[in-house]
Amino acid sequence: MTSDWKSVAAQKKAALEASIPAEWRIEQLPTDGSVMSFPKTSGILTPDELAITESSATDLVRDLASGKITSIAVTTAFCKRAAVAHQLTNCFHEFFPEIALRRAKYLDEYLAENKKPIGPLHGLPISLKDQVRIKGLETTMGYVSWIGKKDTEDSVLTTMLLNAGAVLYVKTSVPQSLMVCETVNNIFGRTTNPRNKNWSCGGSSGGEGAIVGIRGGIIGVGTDIGGSIRVPAAFNFLYGLRPSHGRLPYAKMANSMEGQETVHSVCGPLTHSVADMRLFVTSVLSQKPWSYDSKVVPIPWRQEEEDAIKNEIASRSLTLGYFSCDGEVLPHPPILRGVQTVVDKLSEAGHTVLPWEPYKHPYAVDLANRVYASDGGVDIFGTLNASGEPAIPNIADLVNPNLPKMSINEVWQVQLDKWNYQSEYLAKIREFETKIGQELDAIIAPITPTAAIRHNQFKYYGYASAINILDFTSVVVPVTFADKGVDKVNEGFAPLGEMDKIVQGEYDPEVYHGAPVAVQIIGRRLTEERVMAIAEEVGRLLGNEITP
Amino acid sequence: MTSDWKSVAAQKKAALEASIPAEWRIEQLPTDGSVMSFPKTSGILTPDELAITESSATDLVRDLASGKITSIAVTTAFCKRAAVAHQLTNCFHEFFPEIALRRAKYLDEYLAENKKPIGPLHGLPISLKDQVRIKGLETTMGYVSWIGKKDTEDSVLTTMLLNAGAVLYVKTSVPQSLMVCETVNNIFGRTTNPRNKNWSCGGSSGGEGAIVGIRGGIIGVGTDIGGSIRVPAAFNFLYGLRPSHGRLPYAKMANSMEGQETVHSVCGPLTHSVADMRLFVTSVLSQKPWSYDSKVVPIPWRQEEEDAIKNEIASRSLTLGYFSCDGEVLPHPPILRGVQTVVDKLSEAGHTVLPWEPYKHPYAVDLANRVYASDGGVDIFGTLNASGEPAIPNIADLVNPNLPKMSINEVWQVQLDKWNYQSEYLAKIREFETKIGQELDAIIAPITPTAAIRHNQFKYYGYASAINILDFTSVVVPVTFADKGVDKVNEGFAPLGEMDKIVQGEYDPEVYHGAPVAVQIIGRRLTEERVMAIAEEVGRLLGNEITP
Repeated sequence: MTSDWKSVAAQKKAALEASIPAEWRIEQLPTDGSVMSFPKTSGILTPDELAITESSATDLVRDLASGKITSIAVTTAFCKRAAVAHQLTNCFHEFFPEIALRRAKYLDEYLAENKKPIGPLHGLPISLKDQVRIKGLETTMGYVSWIGKKDTEDSVLTTMLLNAGAVLYVKTSVPQSLMVCETVNNIFGRTTNPRNKNWSCGGSSGGEGAIVGIRGGIIGVGTDIGGSIRVPAAFNFLYGLRPSHGRLPYAKMANSMEGQETVHSVCGPLTHSVADMRLFVTSVLSQKPWSYDSKVVPIPWRQEEEDAIKNEIASRSLTLGYFSCDGEVLPHPPILRGVQTVVDKLSEAGHTVLPWEPYKHPYAVDLANRVYASDGGVDIFGTLNASGEPAIPNIADLVNPNLPKMSINEVWQVQLDKWNYQSEYLAKIREFETKIGQELDAIIAPITPTAAIRHNQFKYYGYASAINILDFTSVVVPVTFADKGVDKVNEGFAPLGEMDKIVQGEYDPEVYHGAPVAVQIIGRRLTEERVMAIAEEVGRLLGNEITP
Repeated sequence: MTSDWKSVAAQKKAALEASIPAEWRIEQLPTDGSVMSFPKTSGILTPDELAITESSATDLVRDLASGKITSIAVTTAFCKRAAVAHQLTNCFHEFFPEIALRRAKYLDEYLAENKKPIGPLHGLPISLKDQVRIKGLETTMGYVSWIGKKDTEDSVLTTMLLNAGAVLYVKTSVPQSLMVCETVNNIFGRTTNPRNKNWSCGGSSGGEGAIVGIRGGIIGVGTDIGGSIRVPAAFNFLYGLRPSHGRLPYAKMANSMEGQETVHSVCGPLTHSVADMRLFVTSVLSQKPWSYDSKVVPIPWRQEEEDAIKNEIASRSLTLGYFSCDGEVLPHPPILRGVQTVVDKLSEAGHTVLPWEPYKHPYAVDLANRVYASDGGVDIFGTLNASGEPAIPNIADLVNPNLPKMSINEVWQVQLDKWNYQSEYLAKIREFETKIGQELDAIIAPITPTAAIRHNQFKYYGYASAINILDFTSVVVPVTFADKGVDKVNEGFAPLGEMDKIVQGEYDPEVYHGAPVAVQIIGRRLTEERVMAIAEEVGRLLGNEITP
């Protein structure tokens, strides 16, 4: 068996590579440095195709709906650029340009015949993390034992996207098990960051981070149980939405530890702008996902919630909290500078930005870690053992088959602890609001303690996972880049504990130079409209986003 | 130890009885038959007090807000009638008229001083199932080992009700463990149905069924994990709302199997009308419970949803499904007649009422039963063993310590099965809608297979628990009463299985004569506004409710 899994994996990998047409192949791969500008000089994309892929989704759907451009043109452009992206970063699991182009042709014909788009995403390519099922294709999620199993039905999100008019063309890479914030598995190997192949693209939606980062995709679908949308967004200078559980449909996706509901995984978009993020969310909600997925709450897009924040922005009266350290691990200098930059920009714009005391975050992080390891690795190791493939190194740390399994009564206790913690957090917010006499609109915080990190170095998930425990809405906003001239080693550093020491010890201004730095904007449960509007304003103040 | 629990329980029971002032004591208790009219002839309540207790909550809050009546008067009236109710049905766990009257005085003074009510429930007494915590009082839930433990904080619902202006005066009886639909425990004994002491008041919110049924309460708060609001509502000719999980706040209530989240218990009101039910729901939602309890979804009262149904009612265009049998247990003749009565009334009124095929209900019922027993009784038996009290007979069947406990991976599988089942059910609804070309507004169904049942006979929870698995919104509507002249034994009965045989075998027209018959109106998840509006119309058509 152990020799066999390698040949099965190799065949799968070879079939993937064969899905890239010869005319989209790069003859001479770059050997080092950023590959961000490679698509422009590759000669594979025409100038029109380059322009399409460097446009916004919001502009593209407008031009697709009016017939100014065709879905064939847009789909061809993204298929080509995605093929280039894959050859540069290894971000594919499944690539199906023929299916995509057939779909694009159908949509172009539909528009010609009906003189109106089929839905709000008419003709727009959307890239999917390899958890989202498409009938007739494979979802391996990087597991060798899942190779060859064709999906017999669509995930609900697939149905919603197709109903909204999207074109699906690629399923992107994930780490084995999904439970790490880097992206490597035994079938496809490692996905790298398009800005520097020595950096991680993040994970587990790492393929989405890379492909959208280099604009081989324009809106990517990720999932997040402990940072898996937000970390790749952060490491690729993208916006990323972790909605609260129940806002977007997750039914019938593949997953590790399926049925685990103590900490819910959620799905959401990675994009270049909040406008594109909003396009995705409004488009999915317009399809009434609550009529398909029982876990989706029947809350349509609430324009009045967005407008409430826009009014506060107009009157310079946002009220925000912020913190730089969660009490467990101090972020690296570039991240501390990133948070301060956002605080300064908002304050200068006239908004109120006050320190927020992160309430018992280490407790939340510990709860999350216990849940992630609660079955002692039975589910994941069962899937590995079915092929004989070994665990990737990161997994042995997180999901250890020698760990005891939680009993059902222990699970209930953790669930009760979580509920109580969440409610205590709400009490802290109410206290804060009472004290300042204002409603707290959101909290600004790091999403990782580091800028885009070197491979195999990602150790501390707490800035992300505490928010998963709270099930708060969070939007990652790209802020700046690490700068060796500014972000000096923290000389007076006194570690808070062992993890803090490890993380801080990993900082090297030279190695991080140029790596993307992000923050997350966090709002209460199911406040997507509000948090996105605040994230948009932060992006605007930073000059990272042009609001249409 | 085993002798000791009895004296502890006896002391607690004696303290409860001592909380009833001598002047509210019944000198000569009736020996048999209905006690529904006893309060009128008891001489304990004045004519004004009788009128107050026979009013509606909607009318009372209007008159309390305008100062036409005082909270002292209303609270006194309900305390008196509740005291009478308890002596007739044994429905109390805690009774605190002095605290209530102090609160009423405060509210009367507040109104006099501020010329406006403190909130939408200003001055209105609300009765609580003995799971709801009030700081400084006990929540025993009928467990001997919990006697003497005073609560150190309020449940979130308590806070919401107090903020809305309610007066709390009583906590009512539940069965040991809450996991049965009758009401008996080792501290307080059995609660009986005010219409016939040989009938169950239902359970687990049985004390609420009895006290609101005989108008010792006007709005009662119950909880429901498998029928515990709906069954006592049905058995006492009341309306009962089982909202979907997340609509109303449950945080910081006492419970059995706390932290069990595979099938959520929810809280909701038992009332004499949908108008009063709406008053309760709108009042609680007006306090923004989502800012206190993390599980509450931020959905304020949606008047537009109610209005959509009211428009359909006005245009006689409701579209409803119905079923009489879930495929596992055929209801008794009075219930079959009840369902048919509702179908006929709606059809006669011009609405569309079509047969609905209940999708895999026995599968859902089995899922629910597995969850209820999933810890093999560890939690409940631990609580019993702490005092040495024995289990009530019903518990040994449902929660058996000899059963194996579910492993965490089995829990996840059940959770995944449940999610898939829910989504399949939604697919069936969409199919149905496509077929008929109309949106399905709700489904009419039995809530129990029997009218108000004799003690120790309640065996089949499936009509209720399948809806808990679906987490659909359900409102119980009182329909009629069993009639020995009409509801003859089903002579040609061929049982569907062992449970069906047991349940049908228990039918006796003589014994059931006069027992309340109800149906439930079921809507998709989080559709409270719509389902309540339909329930109101059904009540109106039946002549059971006067819409204000």
